[in-house]
Amino acid sequence: MRMISPIIFTVSLLLSSSCHAAVQDFCVADFTAPESPTGHACKKPETVTVNDFVYSGLGVAGNTSNLLKAAVTPAFVTEFPALNGLGISLARLDMAPGGVAPVHTHPGATEVVHVVSGKITAGFISGANKVYYKTLNKGDLIIFPQGLLHFLENAETTPAEAYFSFNSVSPGSQLVDFALFGNDFPTELVAATTFLDTAQIKKLKGALGGSG
Amino acid sequence: MRMISPIIFTVSLLLSSSCHAAVQDFCVADFTAPESPTGHACKKPETVTVNDFVYSGLGVAGNTSNLLKAAVTPAFVTEFPALNGLGISLARLDMAPGGVAPVHTHPGATEVVHVVSGKITAGFISGANKVYYKTLNKGDLIIFPQGLLHFLENAETTPAEAYFSFNSVSPGSQLVDFALFGNDFPTELVAATTFLDTAQIKKLKGALGGSG
Amino acid sequence: MRMISPIIFTVSLLLSSSCHAAVQDFCVADFTAPESPTGHACKKPETVTVNDFVYSGLGVAGNTSNLLKAAVTPAFVTEFPALNGLGISLARLDMAPGGVAPVHTHPGATEVVHVVSGKITAGFISGANKVYYKTLNKGDLIIFPQGLLHFLENAETTPAEAYFSFNSVSPGSQLVDFALFGNDFPTELVAATTFLDTAQIKKLKGALGGSG
Amino acid sequence: MRMISPIIFTVSLLLSSSCHAAVQDFCVADFTAPESPTGHACKKPETVTVNDFVYSGLGVAGNTSNLLKAAVTPAFVTEFPALNGLGISLARLDMAPGGVAPVHTHPGATEVVHVVSGKITAGFISGANKVYYKTLNKGDLIIFPQGLLHFLENAETTPAEAYFSFNSVSPGSQLVDFALFGNDFPTELVAATTFLDTAQIKKLKGALGGSG
Amino acid sequence: MRMISPIIFTVSLLLSSSCHAAVQDFCVADFTAPESPTGHACKKPETVTVNDFVYSGLGVAGNTSNLLKAAVTPAFVTEFPALNGLGISLARLDMAPGGVAPVHTHPGATEVVHVVSGKITAGFISGANKVYYKTLNKGDLIIFPQGLLHFLENAETTPAEAYFSFNSVSPGSQLVDFALFGNDFPTELVAATTFLDTAQIKKLKGALGGSG
Amino acid sequence: MRMISPIIFTVSLLLSSSCHAAVQDFCVADFTAPESPTGHACKKPETVTVNDFVYSGLGVAGNTSNLLKAAVTPAFVTEFPALNGLGISLARLDMAPGGVAPVHTHPGATEVVHVVSGKITAGFISGANKVYYKTLNKGDLIIFPQGLLHFLENAETTPAEAYFSFNSVSPGSQLVDFALFGNDFPTELVAATTFLDTAQIKKLKGALGGSG
Repeated sequence: MRMISPIIFTVSLLLSSSCHAAVQDFCVADFTAPESPTGHACKKPETVTVNDFVYSGLGVAGNTSNLLKAAVTPAFVTEFPALNGLGISLARLDMAPGGVAPVHTHPGATEVVHVVSGKITAGFISGANKVYYKTLNKGDLIIFPQGLLHFLENAETTPAEAYFSFNSVSPGSQLVDFALFGNDFPTELVAATTFLDTAQIKKLKGALGGSG
Repeated sequence: MRMISPIIFTVSLLLSSSCHAAVQDFCVADFTAPESPTGHACKKPETVTVNDFVYSGLGVAGNTSNLLKAAVTPAFVTEFPALNGLGISLARLDMAPGGVAPVHTHPGATEVVHVVSGKITAGFISGANKVYYKTLNKGDLIIFPQGLLHFLENAETTPAEAYFSFNSVSPGSQLVDFALFGNDFPTELVAATTFLDTAQIKKLKGALGGSG
Repeated sequence: MRMISPIIFTVSLLLSSSCHAAVQDFCVADFTAPESPTGHACKKPETVTVNDFVYSGLGVAGNTSNLLKAAVTPAFVTEFPALNGLGISLARLDMAPGGVAPVHTHPGATEVVHVVSGKITAGFISGANKVYYKTLNKGDLIIFPQGLLHFLENAETTPAEAYFSFNSVSPGSQLVDFALFGNDFPTELVAATTFLDTAQIKKLKGALGGSG
Repeated sequence: MRMISPIIFTVSLLLSSSCHAAVQDFCVADFTAPESPTGHACKKPETVTVNDFVYSGLGVAGNTSNLLKAAVTPAFVTEFPALNGLGISLARLDMAPGGVAPVHTHPGATEVVHVVSGKITAGFISGANKVYYKTLNKGDLIIFPQGLLHFLENAETTPAEAYFSFNSVSPGSQLVDFALFGNDFPTELVAATTFLDTAQIKKLKGALGGSG
Repeated sequence: MRMISPIIFTVSLLLSSSCHAAVQDFCVADFTAPESPTGHACKKPETVTVNDFVYSGLGVAGNTSNLLKAAVTPAFVTEFPALNGLGISLARLDMAPGGVAPVHTHPGATEVVHVVSGKITAGFISGANKVYYKTLNKGDLIIFPQGLLHFLENAETTPAEAYFSFNSVSPGSQLVDFALFGNDFPTELVAATTFLDTAQIKKLKGALGGSG
Repeated sequence: MRMISPIIFTVSLLLSSSCHAAVQDFCVADFTAPESPTGHACKKPETVTVNDFVYSGLGVAGNTSNLLKAAVTPAFVTEFPALNGLGISLARLDMAPGGVAPVHTHPGATEVVHVVSGKITAGFISGANKVYYKTLNKGDLIIFPQGLLHFLENAETTPAEAYFSFNSVSPGSQLVDFALFGNDFPTELVAATTFLDTAQIKKLKGALGGSG
């Protein structure tokens, strides 16, 4: 077939502009180079394979044998480096009966929760201090707008499973309890800036491994 | 209790800055006002309830009794107006045995697929024309970077179910087959710009309802 | 002078491209039109005067005769509509002796605090639960990265004055105390999702005007 | 052919997500609705035709019979409303012998100049006050980074033609001469803030139609 | 002149803030350092000269002696490193009689085409599968919104020349033919996900150098 | 207390997603690594202390013993590396009687000025060449929209002090006088592109250290 070589010749001509595009189509994180404000450095595209784009870590339930009776299994850029630069990530939530995801924020992302099994009571509090919460059934979605305090609680006596989608490869997490009581934040300063009683603070510092 | 009123007084003082924040925490789409390049106008926040933030449409399987043997059920801003301005959306994929999501792009979003049941062969093609594809099991994720051609196919003789997360409230969809053959794109022009044979084009135009 | 008219003729030629630019140089908020996810509609530029760009509201100290002994006076887009679309805003903090800005976040902005008089102890807690705090003197700046919990406290027995700069025209505010205790968030749900004792919750709900 | 109707049925299923996408693929400006900080409202997509996406205004040379001996013909969103929201625009530059585009900035865009005929001396000044300039031949490109002062001058005794590309639909223009001398900026204030001699200011105010 | 030294003294005072600005005014790509998701590392600004900002590669017609009878000559960041971080790039299209730019997308950019000589039939297909196309004359512009399939064809029996502007320094390119037939994408999988006949696929794989 | 260890166990489970968040909460600039278009590389978060987030450089008045009788003291990313990636910065302005900040732009940021003592006449010129200026009192704010020419002048016979907030960590500065007269910009080219008289240009080049 005589047309083969000329068209192949064209490919290289036309795709001289695409050579670089391969670098830009994706930027699988190389954690050995310095990080920039917008993400990690890119692995050389020629070393990237389909396995970089596939992640199986959410296929296994997290261990809920803990006091929260809940576990979050992330698929953020740390675990799934091919997300780097692409502005999206996921996580899995497993909840035993009585399980809870305490009040927390994600400073850098909006979250959508998708309940896959069980029933979950979930909600968030707006900047105007209005509480929006509801008990979700299998198949339901709920939105937690970026940066707002939110929570989830198993609403049944059976396990629950849900998936979180975030519009960031690294949404961050700030749990109010651990931020206030799980570190060396001085009790006096916590009391002054939260109006909580000292005894309450000390009790939770004890439970959460805090000091000060 | 004497401290009540003064603190409440403080609330209004401190939150004078938050009154507007309530408007900004979210912007539930009002489809009756003109749309801007970055999304729809906002409903008045005082008319918004928790039901705006919850969507149950993904709880029901799509009807796969069609030739693709597949159905996509979106939870984009059109269906879930509270996503407006928040940069994230989801969709559900149901596939009967033999089901396929033909080669297509989402011009405005990166997609992460999460297989919830069954096995799905999924992949994308990079700008350097390399094909990255793999058969995914329950629990697996795969990334389709923004704007690149990709496809999914049921890899088993049992149904499959998967969820898509997008970093856009309206990722758009462009299926190559429907773009080329499902409209009045003149056959001669399709042939000239795709190198496909005229007979092939006419056959698919016939199947997909195209003309010209 | 013969050159006048031709150059003036040129002005209109060259500035045909600038006519629209005047609309884009600024977009003073028109609160009567619908809001979009990225801000308010623009006033007609021909109705805008220098007074739109000047705001005097921060020139007066806030009233600190409240239990927080503190007052925040915002210059956000609500108060200073010419900020609309420009991605920056300010606020003034006045603190009487004993004044405190309780633990809170700004979901949509990084904040820089500038102490103008007095001494203020200020800090934030990172997502890794590390507390970064210090007592600031007149002239000092401190950064609170976007979305993270932070607090300020008058460190002296004299009044303090500080200014906040935000990289958003409407940074929002979420005070943990008011989010948890200043509304109808059910006590049982607060307890389950914060580990706080019921008595503590009820006490603060009483003080902050909450119910449930 | 029996396969037609089932696939067509599929089209509507799969494209329920695309109905909205048509609105998002483009947002042709509707100048009758209020403008937002990120652009104009969108025309109803069903009223949009291919003629919205085609613009012929750059096909005609600008009139250079003026003192600048130059003319800029814009294809910004004002002239070419389909650019709305798409972040790009063009303009045409015609220069008679002796033509000049005086020192100016585009506050909202980087510019690339493409010389199509003639020779043009073009340059910009960096924030470090270094002047980067060169005489460009037919086919040459030069970059003016966003917001920096730059200029162009016909380098030959023949006409020159060039095209500007901007990464904004409305790059704005601020010509130093017109900003200082083409309005009612008080001469004394111009003198104080530019160190120019009063006589020089008055001379240019006279030439450019300024007062004050 | 006595005023010299004091003002120069002032220069360094006032410009202490500009020293860094020189780094930020531009960021000429240094391809030897790791790439980040938002672009390449910056060359030291003191090594940058005006020649970095000028590119002459578009001054020469591409070689159209190939089956497409067309050639694209890019001025993307790879060829013109000073574009790095500036969000704009250009390319030149040359078409012999019968020349064609086959159906393709640019995943990361909107494109504006400017016809400089000849006549070109150009168009794009929206997400709603509507084809927008027209024959352009010298001087005409057409917009291809980001990520959508589009094509160009020489509409005359004479050569044509056009220039592309993109709002990205590396718009990427995905040609449907090369994505489907120019690699090792298995014929069976192509058939299943495109509905094309196997014979058609094999024919084009043969022509475009594909296998599998 | 028996609950301690299980909850601590939970902490590490739940915070596996937060480990990375600590890296993202902030990105204190490491000036030893290459810079990217969006900022500097990040210091290792474990080496960051509260002192990185506090800056005292604005506590001291700048030296106004110069011809401008004014001094700008920046707190940009160069001086305050913890601002890196956070999109905000500040600066201090001191003005002796007669002090002036000559006409200039910040190519990359909108600026808000806050007058803390004295009276300052400040203004900007729009792209439509309208001058917006006013004399500001203590406590007043004025906005200079991104990239537009603006100026400040001490309006009293007493010193004045003001603070600038910018929505960029490195707003850049381009002073028209220094851009035109403080370098080797050839006098003839300055004259041609500004319409200033050669004598005026040479006089200011002399004063500002320019040549050519």
